[in-house]
Amino acid sequence: MAKDEQNVPVEIVGQRARAVSRHLAHCSTEQKNAALLTIADELSRCAAEILAANARDVEAAHARAMPAAFIDRLILTPQRLQTMANDIRAVAALPDPVGEIFDAVTLPNGLRLHKRRIPLGVLAVIYEARPNVTTDIAALALKSGNAVILRGGSDNIHSNLALVGAIHSALARTGLPADAVQLIADTDRARVLELLRLHAYVDLVIPRGGESLHRFCRENSTIPVITGGMGINHIYVDPSAELDKAVEVVFNAKVSKPTVCNALGTLLVHAQVANTFLPMVAERLAEKQVELRCDARALGLLDGRYPWTKPADDASDWDTEWLGLILGVRLVDSLDEAIAFIQAHSLEHSDGICARDPQVIERFVNQIDSSAVFVNASTRFNDGGQFGLGAEVAISTQRVHARGPMGLRELTSYKWVCEGDGHVRW
Amino acid sequence: MAKDEQNVPVEIVGQRARAVSRHLAHCSTEQKNAALLTIADELSRCAAEILAANARDVEAAHARAMPAAFIDRLILTPQRLQTMANDIRAVAALPDPVGEIFDAVTLPNGLRLHKRRIPLGVLAVIYEARPNVTTDIAALALKSGNAVILRGGSDNIHSNLALVGAIHSALARTGLPADAVQLIADTDRARVLELLRLHAYVDLVIPRGGESLHRFCRENSTIPVITGGMGINHIYVDPSAELDKAVEVVFNAKVSKPTVCNALGTLLVHAQVANTFLPMVAERLAEKQVELRCDARALGLLDGRYPWTKPADDASDWDTEWLGLILGVRLVDSLDEAIAFIQAHSLEHSDGICARDPQVIERFVNQIDSSAVFVNASTRFNDGGQFGLGAEVAISTQRVHARGPMGLRELTSYKWVCEGDGHVRW
Repeated sequence: MAKDEQNVPVEIVGQRARAVSRHLAHCSTEQKNAALLTIADELSRCAAEILAANARDVEAAHARAMPAAFIDRLILTPQRLQTMANDIRAVAALPDPVGEIFDAVTLPNGLRLHKRRIPLGVLAVIYEARPNVTTDIAALALKSGNAVILRGGSDNIHSNLALVGAIHSALARTGLPADAVQLIADTDRARVLELLRLHAYVDLVIPRGGESLHRFCRENSTIPVITGGMGINHIYVDPSAELDKAVEVVFNAKVSKPTVCNALGTLLVHAQVANTFLPMVAERLAEKQVELRCDARALGLLDGRYPWTKPADDASDWDTEWLGLILGVRLVDSLDEAIAFIQAHSLEHSDGICARDPQVIERFVNQIDSSAVFVNASTRFNDGGQFGLGAEVAISTQRVHARGPMGLRELTSYKWVCEGDGHVRW
Repeated sequence: MAKDEQNVPVEIVGQRARAVSRHLAHCSTEQKNAALLTIADELSRCAAEILAANARDVEAAHARAMPAAFIDRLILTPQRLQTMANDIRAVAALPDPVGEIFDAVTLPNGLRLHKRRIPLGVLAVIYEARPNVTTDIAALALKSGNAVILRGGSDNIHSNLALVGAIHSALARTGLPADAVQLIADTDRARVLELLRLHAYVDLVIPRGGESLHRFCRENSTIPVITGGMGINHIYVDPSAELDKAVEVVFNAKVSKPTVCNALGTLLVHAQVANTFLPMVAERLAEKQVELRCDARALGLLDGRYPWTKPADDASDWDTEWLGLILGVRLVDSLDEAIAFIQAHSLEHSDGICARDPQVIERFVNQIDSSAVFVNASTRFNDGGQFGLGAEVAISTQRVHARGPMGLRELTSYKWVCEGDGHVRW
């Protein structure tokens, strides 16, 4: 990104985004795909430059003695850059949502009505130290015909400047305006506050990061914000469950990637099968030494038979997102008790049931209103890629606009088209 | 409404709404419909009380020398009360959106996925002096399983207290919680500000009123706000149009109800047909003595032939919502010029074209992204009732969540339901 472009006032960034958004909305699929493929190529062409910039960020992170996990998220390698380029190519291969026609109907008076998908307009994405978000989001925004304002953290500022530089060069070569993808390079946090007040130019704010970032956006934004990215997720094991399958579902939900928001937080077991099921699942979880925070009854059943148990702290443990190899375990005496417990403690991200009884399943599915409700399947499937959206911009746990995994279609709105033959209304 | 319920702190109102919303979400259609029909009956049963309360509001408005149009909106009569009751019965007769299943698919790995409609949760509706909004919104919220917080103006406070009293009595008799419909009766404007910050409890803010109310909500709310209710609407008359039908469409769009947001603001006429078309449409508009604010060329064609012409003020007239019998008139030399003009001046509410050439129509419909785009039909059709939604909570001109007329479905969200047979993800 050119030096003189790095300190444009936030308000001007917003105006520019709004101005180009009307143009982007009507670009052809071919033109958008050409731009995406050129960006992907440009990442390879500029690899040396991007990796050098990234090295500066990594060096700064080391100098600040940041934890290894942080640096791992920050670091780019030739292989990671290749993956980022391939992810962009995958977005190019997805169907273009813009222009899609749906809900067509002819009214009794002969008016023909349909809805036609249009872009949202301008997205603002605020994120932390993951350079791949820069290219992922830019690709999804472009494909869906939206302009995007990126606000990465100061930790990856050099990487982001290099990546956006490559994006701009590709946009220029394919005839799309550079302002389609803008980076706010001033790392002062005051700029984020300014961005969150740009309701005149920005249609949607998408925070990508931890709880505090989400809360900050929600509390300070006059623009609609997508809330999500946190989960305290439950699986309830019913007496009608196939217990061996339930063991595998629980094990997968807890250990396959414990640091993510669709991982399991609390296991609820019906008292009727706890005697059989708890030792089974504990034996499997022992392979990863998962710590179990148990209520008194679960503790009674496991004590002495499983080395990593602890009594749960009722004041906090049922409302904690573990992000690690810890699992809350609790006995319940009925489906109703399980439902009430989940309604009280879930963040409405991903909750599930293991059961065979269709009436039990239907009641659970009706009563639990989480963004995704799982029946005999791991909560880890709550993901745009897994759900067949091809890509994902966020997982929303709110109810306005979109809920659950958000793909390209969730970055669009629609217009109504009403065709008549001189129809009037008196 | 009971006296001791009238000054509950706004935060408590929000907490109560959130608490009952989870119950309302799972009420049966039968129970919700029974409540709606009982509310309708209760309006008749309490008519004397409601009309007496309304008389106090009307008297206060007279004392403040409010304009006749204002008092007309405020006043209730037995007949208007009857209409309000019938509107509630009409909502009861609409299909229940909650629980509707859509987007069902079986993934390649065998997971069965569908979406199921759920309520938004808690709505806050902020409105001005129209008591019918109180019952309309309460009915739409209940039917869609949402709790609602009503904030009417001080001008109709007695009417609203009486109406919400009748609603509460009906809710009690049908076993639904009174907190499903709450009125903030403290008329201090500071309460609105508090309401707009309740993002922990409220999912969506819907302003019903003029521009300043919408702007106030947008600028002060940390909750998503539905923007709308304003229109600077255009009709472009193409050389391919059937001119006699175009005259009727323009006449209807301008004069059938000039005070509403889907009325016509500016007429754009292709220069090629202006000679013929302008005198035709002017002759028709003369029946209502519509004032025409013309650009120089239109003025040249009409001057001396139409008594109510004025030169348009380029600095303001193309960006004014007339809300009366005034029409901007302008010649354009091409479809592109018409499109560019509309994109520059429309508020994206309702814009239309009169044309027969399918290529012209398709280009117009693709390029104009207003909430509703009309082809050979009056802009006045942009309305939930006219579009077959049965009822309408607002007309949105924003792009997030819903766009155009919002009916019951637009007061819902969805959850994903994912059913497997012990499916896990590694």
